[in-house]
Amino acid sequence: MFGSLLDASEIHIWTDVDGVLSADPRRVPNAQVIDSLSYNEAMELAYFGAKVIHPQTMAPAVGRSIPIYIRNTFNPAGPGTLICAKPDSQLLVKGITTIEGIALVNIEGAGMIGVPGTAHRLFGALREEGISVILISQGSSEHSICCAIPQDQSERALRVVRAAFRRELDEGQIQSVEASPDLAILAVVGDGMAGTPGVSAKVFNALGAAAVNVRAIAQGASERNISVVVDGKHATRALRATHASFYLSPNTFSIGLIGPGTVGRVLLDQLATQQARLSREFKLDLRVRGIMGSKRMLLSEPGADLDHWRDELQSQAEPADLKRFVEHVQADYLPHTVIIDCTADGEVASHYRDWLEAGIHVVTPNKKANSASLDYYDSLKAARRVGGSHYLYEGTVGAGLPIVQTLRDLRETGDEIESIEGIFSGTLAYLFNVYDGSVPFSAIVREAKQRGYTEPDPRDDLSGTDVARKLTILAREMGLRLEMSDVKVASLVPVDLEHGTIDGFLDGLSAYDAGMQERFAAAAAAGKVLRYVGRITSTGEATVGLVEMDRKHAFANIALTDNVVRFSTARYNKNALIVQGPGAGPEVTAGGVFGDLLRLSAYLGARL
Amino acid sequence: MFGSLLDASEIHIWTDVDGVLSADPRRVPNAQVIDSLSYNEAMELAYFGAKVIHPQTMAPAVGRSIPIYIRNTFNPAGPGTLICAKPDSQLLVKGITTIEGIALVNIEGAGMIGVPGTAHRLFGALREEGISVILISQGSSEHSICCAIPQDQSERALRVVRAAFRRELDEGQIQSVEASPDLAILAVVGDGMAGTPGVSAKVFNALGAAAVNVRAIAQGASERNISVVVDGKHATRALRATHASFYLSPNTFSIGLIGPGTVGRVLLDQLATQQARLSREFKLDLRVRGIMGSKRMLLSEPGADLDHWRDELQSQAEPADLKRFVEHVQADYLPHTVIIDCTADGEVASHYRDWLEAGIHVVTPNKKANSASLDYYDSLKAARRVGGSHYLYEGTVGAGLPIVQTLRDLRETGDEIESIEGIFSGTLAYLFNVYDGSVPFSAIVREAKQRGYTEPDPRDDLSGTDVARKLTILAREMGLRLEMSDVKVASLVPVDLEHGTIDGFLDGLSAYDAGMQERFAAAAAAGKVLRYVGRITSTGEATVGLVEMDRKHAFANIALTDNVVRFSTARYNKNALIVQGPGAGPEVTAGGVFGDLLRLSAYLGARL
Repeated sequence: MFGSLLDASEIHIWTDVDGVLSADPRRVPNAQVIDSLSYNEAMELAYFGAKVIHPQTMAPAVGRSIPIYIRNTFNPAGPGTLICAKPDSQLLVKGITTIEGIALVNIEGAGMIGVPGTAHRLFGALREEGISVILISQGSSEHSICCAIPQDQSERALRVVRAAFRRELDEGQIQSVEASPDLAILAVVGDGMAGTPGVSAKVFNALGAAAVNVRAIAQGASERNISVVVDGKHATRALRATHASFYLSPNTFSIGLIGPGTVGRVLLDQLATQQARLSREFKLDLRVRGIMGSKRMLLSEPGADLDHWRDELQSQAEPADLKRFVEHVQADYLPHTVIIDCTADGEVASHYRDWLEAGIHVVTPNKKANSASLDYYDSLKAARRVGGSHYLYEGTVGAGLPIVQTLRDLRETGDEIESIEGIFSGTLAYLFNVYDGSVPFSAIVREAKQRGYTEPDPRDDLSGTDVARKLTILAREMGLRLEMSDVKVASLVPVDLEHGTIDGFLDGLSAYDAGMQERFAAAAAAGKVLRYVGRITSTGEATVGLVEMDRKHAFANIALTDNVVRFSTARYNKNALIVQGPGAGPEVTAGGVFGDLLRLSAYLGARL
Repeated sequence: MFGSLLDASEIHIWTDVDGVLSADPRRVPNAQVIDSLSYNEAMELAYFGAKVIHPQTMAPAVGRSIPIYIRNTFNPAGPGTLICAKPDSQLLVKGITTIEGIALVNIEGAGMIGVPGTAHRLFGALREEGISVILISQGSSEHSICCAIPQDQSERALRVVRAAFRRELDEGQIQSVEASPDLAILAVVGDGMAGTPGVSAKVFNALGAAAVNVRAIAQGASERNISVVVDGKHATRALRATHASFYLSPNTFSIGLIGPGTVGRVLLDQLATQQARLSREFKLDLRVRGIMGSKRMLLSEPGADLDHWRDELQSQAEPADLKRFVEHVQADYLPHTVIIDCTADGEVASHYRDWLEAGIHVVTPNKKANSASLDYYDSLKAARRVGGSHYLYEGTVGAGLPIVQTLRDLRETGDEIESIEGIFSGTLAYLFNVYDGSVPFSAIVREAKQRGYTEPDPRDDLSGTDVARKLTILAREMGLRLEMSDVKVASLVPVDLEHGTIDGFLDGLSAYDAGMQERFAAAAAAGKVLRYVGRITSTGEATVGLVEMDRKHAFANIALTDNVVRFSTARYNKNALIVQGPGAGPEVTAGGVFGDLLRLSAYLGARL
């Protein structure tokens, strides 16, 4: 057999896998076939149980530089793996593996400093006992030296090492000889690591981010292998995190979208059109791994096909279960997890704190969390700190218009906000842009509802509650300690119509047309118009209601359903900074959420 | 002496330094006094030449747990350092040092795999020759083993190791025994590292970011010391970068500001008011280490006192020298460098490429770079990639108004820009807001100049060149391949007045008052007003000039010197997205630059 190998010009090995994999596929779901390996790399990996080829089998081929091809019998057209002397691969790292059941023997003592021979005696003792040393590490002080051995040999090891250093232990030159059990060795292998700064940073970043504690490290002069001793119970997490850092874009996001209704649906479609471009231009890998509606949810691996997410949600859905949804979305082998809440649901918003604390980023146009109690609002800040997570919500005010970010920029650069005022409801903007006294106000409301310009129950718009919510969000962004109940709201819903059916409300509203007509006439007589305005000042005065405005005021001249926001600040004092445009609607709201998602990716290191 | 130490309840050692320092102050300018050390930490550091106390001196104290105080004879009130069994310190890392003149001996061969005893024989050979081994590392494959030794002993080491493994070398079980010279060991020491995930990540991140190649690593089970073998010529850089990562905020910015004139001056004052808050709330350490005017520059260490930068620039300035300025600002022991160009100078802008390529971030309101040739513009993108640097320029259009970022958000989220139009010049906005036909246009220009509303030479405004520049910047941000010369500009400067003195121009302009009066009258007759508008479409048509606009148009109703920009897009199609407000002036321009600086810090990991 060997004789024939030595005469061969190439060797083909047919197996039942596609080639040498980057990691054990049972532990790392996205392990990939490695295109080519050097003999050295193959030997290094073989040692860790890459089951494709045994080092002894390979030795004769190495001596004659005979290339070895590994192919899948069941997939002969597959790429396979080439093992040769100088492979032409772009990969820095060719494989990541773990050895478990490891104990770390440590010998420590000030007496070792400057005394040659400790290592010699340590390894002599272990050798005589036939104990195989898998990893050795001694830091530069010679104050301690450690080695990793199979855990089932650790008692014998301790016995012989303690015997060898009996005198030093008795005299106190060596303080201790101990073994730490239940450890694992993570080995990262690749010729390309040599001479490439930052490879070790990648390994240890991944481990740090996954909260894996590093117990010992060895990287020898060949620079072909970084070996890290970690807690055994962290082995899989360490393996997955390290694998992700080399084989996935660092800008890989595991996305869970809750609420594939109006805004969520459009957002998924927007993502579908941009996914390929963002991946190509910015290596941004956006994987929608979960979509959850009120009744059903789709859990997907590696991610939903966004061109057919409706079909997948139809055909592969299972009953909605938020806990399982979040567990699936937060996969520990993917660098970042983000939940996009496209609902308007307070219950969903009540989970943000837990998610942020668990390191899950949250992006949302849902106003419920930021307008909840100050206690909850404050707890979100604390949770972000604990979890190192981001929380983005530009879409909560003015949909895609740059309002929250503009306010934040002004504040963080030291500008002083004097007041913010605006028309924050497209529906109310529309109603008062259209209302010119010629048609009863109730008829305009009824028509607006029919055209789908209002909420299903128009009282949700007319009550001013939604405007008060937005004002609360902005007030807190200004740094004010304001509860939503502190906002003085002049509702347009008459008290006696607050309850009852929608139709009953619409019918009943006509009884108030005369009153509205009077307000309009009074304003018109003074050369003014009526607008439903929210206003907040630096002193914390927050009001929402109908006000008379000069016909030349910016708010009097907006397009039909536009929102408009005026920031008056120390810098923008004579002339305000004004942002204006459609402040609602699925397209622009989804656009705002998408913008936040990209901002998040930039905060996490993507280079847009 | 020892007898008395053993009886002591505490030991005070008086020296000529303030205590044990975090690093050699001759190599790390911001080394700091360590409050307290454990005996183990002190021994570890002593080994590397922390000159305060010798391990042998310390031993008796250790045995009796006697605390040791180290104080400065010349500064007895200073904090000093306490060495004891269980110090109460918040610091993870107590010291970082290097040992230079190191060689790494590596023994490598497939034949070592699974054969116990290689380590034993290797260290036996070195021991017999009396060679002290400073660091040992053997990765998990047992395929190679390496150790660091003093370089002057490396020839002897090679000789004895080769002799010891003569047979294996001859038979090919061991392929090589080599020594790599000119290396250094970087040691990071601290008890707090044990059990704290992410410490190693910090070390290797710092080394990776500083492009230091890691040749070998050892971290033993005590987790008190991470030792890294690096190229000797990188030793200082490695030391400084690692020191910075533990002792400085990762959000430390070395800032060089060019152009402390109008905008730069205000920016420095804005920074002065916010510096302490940003440091307190976000650990953002903004150090203005250089300020350069046209003639003089201030190079400061550790950073200018922003409350007195004018005095420092006055008293400590030296002749301006851009090369020296940049060298000083880009200190390799600080995590990030940013140059803020507050000039309007094309020469300064021509350096952006080099700076970005060298990893220096650039923030600027200077329009010259982005409106230069497409070749140069493209090269800035390439340079950013090479240098891993960011380039931010919100202030180039509309000063502090959110225009560039809004456009970018729309584009990156897949919106399609149909057109952008706006009034991009506060000066021209003012002139045509004021001009009502009753006073000659030339008189209005003259008055505006006297009030400081125009550039020193009003032709710089009236020519439309500045508007064309802004339009070019926006067009490129839209993805259009447009040179500034492609913008069709209708200048308001008569051809025969293009040259000559400013006074000559102002006098000569009155000859054209009648023509302007006619245009105004024609517009008024049609119920319109005149506005100087820049406009660009998705097809690349770019125009700048005077247009008639309806009196009700948004552009007809802006405040005196406001800018206004309308984005018409696929999403914002019926109603445009409009941003309006003061688009010039030092306060708001500086605010825009400051906003970019904070955005940069967020991209680089600061959590605002």
